[in-house]
Parts: sequence; structure tokens; C-alpha cells
Amino acid sequence: MVQTYDDQNIFAKILRGEIPSQRVYEDDHVVAFMDVMPQGKGHTLVVPRQPSRNLLDADPATLGPLVRAVQLVSQAAMRAFAADGVTITQFNEAPAGQSVYHLHVHVIPRFDGVPLKPHTGKMEDQAVLAENAEKLRKAIAAHAPS
Amino acid sequence: MVQTYDDQNIFAKILRGEIPSQRVYEDDHVVAFMDVMPQGKGHTLVVPRQPSRNLLDADPATLGPLVRAVQLVSQAAMRAFAADGVTITQFNEAPAGQSVYHLHVHVIPRFDGVPLKPHTGKMEDQAVLAENAEKLRKAIAAHAPS
Repeated sequence: MVQTYDDQNIFAKILRGEIPSQRVYEDDHVVAFMDVMPQGKGHTLVVPRQPSRNLLDADPATLGPLVRAVQLVSQAAMRAFAADGVTITQFNEAPAGQSVYHLHVHVIPRFDGVPLKPHTGKMEDQAVLAENAEKLRKAIAAHAPS
Repeated sequence: MVQTYDDQNIFAKILRGEIPSQRVYEDDHVVAFMDVMPQGKGHTLVVPRQPSRNLLDADPATLGPLVRAVQLVSQAAMRAFAADGVTITQFNEAPAGQSVYHLHVHVIPRFDGVPLKPHTGKMEDQAVLAENAEKLRKAIAAHAPS
């Protein structure tokens, strides 16, 4: 199996700013932005700037900064949305659920008694995404990493 | 919400060797072993040695070695089981699906057309776990991290 990286994938375009996104965090290594088809309120994607298809071909050096940003967004999401938990998922190849071939981690705030919605392809209202992004940005700014 | 770490959780006992497990990898930072209630063939857990309840309270310094081990096990699982993909999940607090309160990451090999089994509480046959663990150990040994 030879799998390659296609720099025309939608997350690569978001990283380059060719497609708009609701960004909530960025540093030298990663960008985090709202998932436009959220499985729950505040569903955020954390994406390394360095190209890789998924975890299987990623440069190990990129993984520490990636997961620390996942932690930062998760902690902020608990406060921003008064969440009861956070589900983290990361899919490698289509049989695992991957649909965009740039490594990404899903950070999904969870609430008592609220099941995850399926990734149906239904776009969330942009005003809702903007509002949730603003809450997350404020929560992250209040507890920036030292 | 004040959540604490209970060192009598089952993964703490596995780390201390008080409960047996089918280990597939360990280093100074992490231990990886077979999930006894697998959601799919080769389902493995990667656990940091350092105590934390989950990602929300983990020392950021533990996260890089953790995710690099997750990558190592994922890459090995692709070879060991001729898998078609790998699903990674990590749950924080009960509403997110967490049931053991020591940070852990699920590495679940995926196969075309085979859905994930629910975490039903059905224990896998120990001989099957031992056979899968041996395949993973060999695949990891063949591509040890440099």
C-alpha cells in the first residue's frame, strides 16, 4: 500500500488560508479550528502545520506539539462550554473513518446524556460556529500555556 | 468539579504488575497492552506510567512520549494484522466514555467492512489476546524506534 499526501486536501487549503475557517488557536506547529460538521457543540479540529497523511506517516517530532495543543483545546473546551467531558478521536485511512487526508485530531466536548451526532455532512450555521469559536478563544487566552 | 486520581484503578494495578496483562511495548514513559474487551482484532491500550486521571489533568511533558508510542503501536498494528486502518480514541470523564480513570489511548486496527464492536464487557479469550500480543511485539521489534 503506497499512500501519498495530496496538498489540495481541504485542511491544507485551510492551513494556507485559501479556505476560511473559524480558528481558535495556532502556534508554530499547529492550527485548531471549528469542525464545520460538528458531532457536538464546540467540536474542534487540531491539525499540524507539517504535511502528513495521518498518524501512520507523521514525523514523530510533530506529535508532541500536536497532542499538547489537543490538551490545551480540551481543557479550554471544558471551561468554555461547561462540558462534562471530552472525546478525542483520530482516524487513519478510510476503514477507520478518515475522510480528509491531512493528519487531524477531533476534540469533541461532551455533555451528560447527549450522544455524539453522526458526521452527516450537514453544515453547521456559521454564526453558531463563530460564537463557539469566540468562547474557545477566550478560554484559551485565559489559560495560555506557560 | 474536583476530580482526583485513585491509584487503585485497574490500569495502575497493571502498571505495578499486580494484575497480569499481555504487554506489547514498554519504555521509560509508557506501557502498551492488549485490551481484554477488544472492540476489534488487536485492540491495544497505551498508558503513561505517570499517574493522571485523563488528558485534562496530565502533565504536558508526558504527552509527547505517549503519542509517539501510540504511533509506534499503530504502525506495528498495520503490519502485524495486515490492517486497513487504525482508529485512535481517548475518552475524558464518564460522559465521554471513560470507565477507567488512568489516562489511556485506544489503538484499534480496522479492516474493510468490519465495524467496531461495542465495549460490551465480554472478555476476549486469553489465548487470542496472547497470539495478537505476540504478533504486535514482533512487528514492533522489527521496526524499533531509532
